[in-house]
Amino acid sequence: MSAASYAMGLDRCAANHVPLTPLGFLDRAALVHPRRIAVVHGELTRTWAQTRERCYRLASALVARGIQAGDTVSVLAPNTPAMLEAHFGVPLSGAVLNAINHRLDAEGVAFILRHGECKLLMVDREYAGVAAAALALLDHRPIVIDINDHLAPAGAPIGEVDYESLLAGGDPRFAGIWPSDEWQPIALNYTSGTTGDPKGVVASHRGTYLMSQLQITNWSVPKAPRYLWTLPMFHANGWCFTWGITAAAGTHVCLRKVSAEAVMAAIDSQGIDHLCAAPIVMAMLSDSAQGKTLPRPVRVLTAGSPPPLAVLEAVRAMGFDVEHVFGITEVCGTPVSCEWQDDWDRLPTAEQGKLRVRQGARAAMFEGLMVGDADTLEPVPQDGRTAGELMLRGNTVMMGYFKNEAATRRALAGGWFRTGDVAVQHDSGYVQITDRSKDVIISGGENISSVEVEDVIHGHPAVLHAAVVAQPDEKWGEVPCAFVELRAGVAPPSEQDIVAFCRARLAHFKCPRRVFFHTLPKTATGKIQKFKLREEAGSAAAITRLADHA
Amino acid sequence: MSAASYAMGLDRCAANHVPLTPLGFLDRAALVHPRRIAVVHGELTRTWAQTRERCYRLASALVARGIQAGDTVSVLAPNTPAMLEAHFGVPLSGAVLNAINHRLDAEGVAFILRHGECKLLMVDREYAGVAAAALALLDHRPIVIDINDHLAPAGAPIGEVDYESLLAGGDPRFAGIWPSDEWQPIALNYTSGTTGDPKGVVASHRGTYLMSQLQITNWSVPKAPRYLWTLPMFHANGWCFTWGITAAAGTHVCLRKVSAEAVMAAIDSQGIDHLCAAPIVMAMLSDSAQGKTLPRPVRVLTAGSPPPLAVLEAVRAMGFDVEHVFGITEVCGTPVSCEWQDDWDRLPTAEQGKLRVRQGARAAMFEGLMVGDADTLEPVPQDGRTAGELMLRGNTVMMGYFKNEAATRRALAGGWFRTGDVAVQHDSGYVQITDRSKDVIISGGENISSVEVEDVIHGHPAVLHAAVVAQPDEKWGEVPCAFVELRAGVAPPSEQDIVAFCRARLAHFKCPRRVFFHTLPKTATGKIQKFKLREEAGSAAAITRLADHA
Repeated sequence: MSAASYAMGLDRCAANHVPLTPLGFLDRAALVHPRRIAVVHGELTRTWAQTRERCYRLASALVARGIQAGDTVSVLAPNTPAMLEAHFGVPLSGAVLNAINHRLDAEGVAFILRHGECKLLMVDREYAGVAAAALALLDHRPIVIDINDHLAPAGAPIGEVDYESLLAGGDPRFAGIWPSDEWQPIALNYTSGTTGDPKGVVASHRGTYLMSQLQITNWSVPKAPRYLWTLPMFHANGWCFTWGITAAAGTHVCLRKVSAEAVMAAIDSQGIDHLCAAPIVMAMLSDSAQGKTLPRPVRVLTAGSPPPLAVLEAVRAMGFDVEHVFGITEVCGTPVSCEWQDDWDRLPTAEQGKLRVRQGARAAMFEGLMVGDADTLEPVPQDGRTAGELMLRGNTVMMGYFKNEAATRRALAGGWFRTGDVAVQHDSGYVQITDRSKDVIISGGENISSVEVEDVIHGHPAVLHAAVVAQPDEKWGEVPCAFVELRAGVAPPSEQDIVAFCRARLAHFKCPRRVFFHTLPKTATGKIQKFKLREEAGSAAAITRLADHA
Repeated sequence: MSAASYAMGLDRCAANHVPLTPLGFLDRAALVHPRRIAVVHGELTRTWAQTRERCYRLASALVARGIQAGDTVSVLAPNTPAMLEAHFGVPLSGAVLNAINHRLDAEGVAFILRHGECKLLMVDREYAGVAAAALALLDHRPIVIDINDHLAPAGAPIGEVDYESLLAGGDPRFAGIWPSDEWQPIALNYTSGTTGDPKGVVASHRGTYLMSQLQITNWSVPKAPRYLWTLPMFHANGWCFTWGITAAAGTHVCLRKVSAEAVMAAIDSQGIDHLCAAPIVMAMLSDSAQGKTLPRPVRVLTAGSPPPLAVLEAVRAMGFDVEHVFGITEVCGTPVSCEWQDDWDRLPTAEQGKLRVRQGARAAMFEGLMVGDADTLEPVPQDGRTAGELMLRGNTVMMGYFKNEAATRRALAGGWFRTGDVAVQHDSGYVQITDRSKDVIISGGENISSVEVEDVIHGHPAVLHAAVVAQPDEKWGEVPCAFVELRAGVAPPSEQDIVAFCRARLAHFKCPRRVFFHTLPKTATGKIQKFKLREEAGSAAAITRLADHA
């Protein structure tokens, strides 16, 4: 500052500077809309006043059990009211919320409890078995709370106390332990770990506050949305919609298990107008509920992997208004979106579809996006062809990886977070992911985008899911190998049918050499586990090689 | 933090921490929607790409003229493209934007230029006369730039260079001088100063970023709004809509002068769907355009003073969707709003009207609101009757008053900003302003809310504007005195008619003793200048007293 006049008497104080945190959204929803329904779970409904009271009871009860500021409190539960309450009650106790993927096995859960230094674990009774097995693997057992959700299957208690009893002993007038600095952790989210040990992504109060508002503004969420929880809350805190829908004083409609029937029933009976869904959920809807029409427009935010064009068109035909976004646990949500351009309306539908699958551009509340060289940070030309790594910079990027300074440094070096996704940038500035770094197939020196091949295969009417991976090849180095999950009740195509279908639409070197038909292995968040398919493709290649050499 | 594990290796860095500033919204709008119309001004339209280029040209040209970080750059202009560009171009030069109320006289302008330490002044040629007179009062003349807006009346240049020439010499590839800390000033806004010298409110990059997003979320502004500039941009930076509409990549439709005809014409021809308007602008619309219907719903945010119920109902009948909010320059916008309650829809219209004029509750992005004692900070009971001072706390509250540490300390003491407004808090938590502190009438020991009396008078069909002030009275101390501006083309009521109208609806001690009919003096932002009316009422009382004693 050259002008000294602005440097005096204009300091931060309690009236003009409050640490940003999404926790305040709860008080405000309860203050302004105390009687509005906050949570629906089967027949159970609770207002914002009731929900606020339960969250403060939880926070005070955790403190009473010895939880201190900066401790980790873990939750192993599906999308239930308890899981939502944990998003407020746990940080209001000063602790860091660690929502665990409930589809992990005991070893996976134990790894997280151990590495995350869990002090207290809340477990939905459906997962009591896996939790008990995980706890048996630990040297130090945390306090364990049983969540006896009324819609959960029966299960024996494994904890010291039941969640409702814990709350009953809590103090609804508890003031809460609020962050003294917005750069303090609020959540610890382990990446799904398709390779190696999972890493613990630490999110800050500041970052999650800003991502909550980014979601509201970038998706233009109106007041009082009725939001269906198809996206797991354990997945990056439901991309911050746990907090964001609360900021909008909306209604959270819970769902323990995602099925096409359950989603369609909730849309019918609960007035749902917004939901988030991985492409795999949309595929499920298009498969099971095709031809049905919606009672009202339902807006869908989709992310997780590039949505197959055919699936996108099928659910749009049903009346879902799908917006394609991109995010990753490390940025706490989805700060990149394929915002519709004014002049795209005039394009033919097929052209629109090609544009719609782009990941797009940064939101107004996110600061930077680049496709470039991860080492030199040199951007690629915006030619829609030159591939580079997608990198992000902004206030919603994680604080870092928990107890892994080396990985944090690698991920954030030079002021950019490396997503590990390979992308091109179009002349419009919109980015399009062509692959995960490790999913690119290099055949005879040519790069093949597995996504491009998958998109073609998805266009076949009998295909529900498709994944293409590299198969080792003595001549070409690698060749594409396809795995296909078929729709129910259709005439199954042959391997040759799929190859021919591809050859009619793709350069021959990009077409799969082999096609295997079976159910695809998926992660908890609906991502196809390509590492398993790569193993399968590798074994198949080895067998072929042995046969050739025999 | 008790858990040391979160204290290590999770520091802020360039990838995860960027100073919050609304300036980034411009780059993002130009990146994602380069060809969308950003600004309309009469026949002139410019895209976001063009507008961005002009802002960066302006910033670089200011730097080339010697402007340094922390200098004050003033603008004296109505709602034109140049004024909008200044909201980005000036801070992008590192300077602090000082948008001056163009309805001030030369002394008022000179006070601001002198106190604000203005280094460079940009003047719309309509205000060249007042600017030249103001400059003549200064010891140090700043650099002066003439803005020759094509819709401005003719005027002789008073500056060194013309705005368009300045831009032509600027560098469109200038990188901009970005804040190194979000707690740096972006704007200096002088309060309208109905009493004493105006005070310079300093707004931060952080505060204006958050207020811009608060406006978008709290008003649920959709993507690509078409926003009409009826609210002066010099008024708290247009409540941050200068930056907020840019964040939504909307279209700013400029308007040099507000008239009912101009507003209705813009709504017809420019697809306007959003505007902000002081109650006085709505009164103008209800007066001149009553009976007209809108070609589409137009959303109106109104603030500035409690809107008269009759005016509110009249414009609602025309099809304006009015939302009532509250703000003050010191909080950089309108963080309090009368958010509609789900069960209000079932109430009779008259009841709804009474609820609609409440100022309401805090937005989700604003942290605190209280009605209480300004000294003890003791809140009043939420009984809808006990008056206290309305106080606010949050991240959009000003950094402080420029070069006035004593006033800053008084305003922000104890962690609450004192608005100077007297309010009650209803059991719903919603606040309702009953008066400015200095506008309360104390008659025979009873407090009379001037707003309550004004509301009744506004219900008279011949009344366009009404203001009630205290008139000195030998017996009662003070008595209410009314000033009324009548609608055009109606049979004028007599003083007795108005008094009788009030007596039928109010306790007698609240009814005005005298009623004067004339055009009411208003500030630039449409607030009635009660201090002038108090002078008039005082003179009238003195004359009466003299006559009585004669």
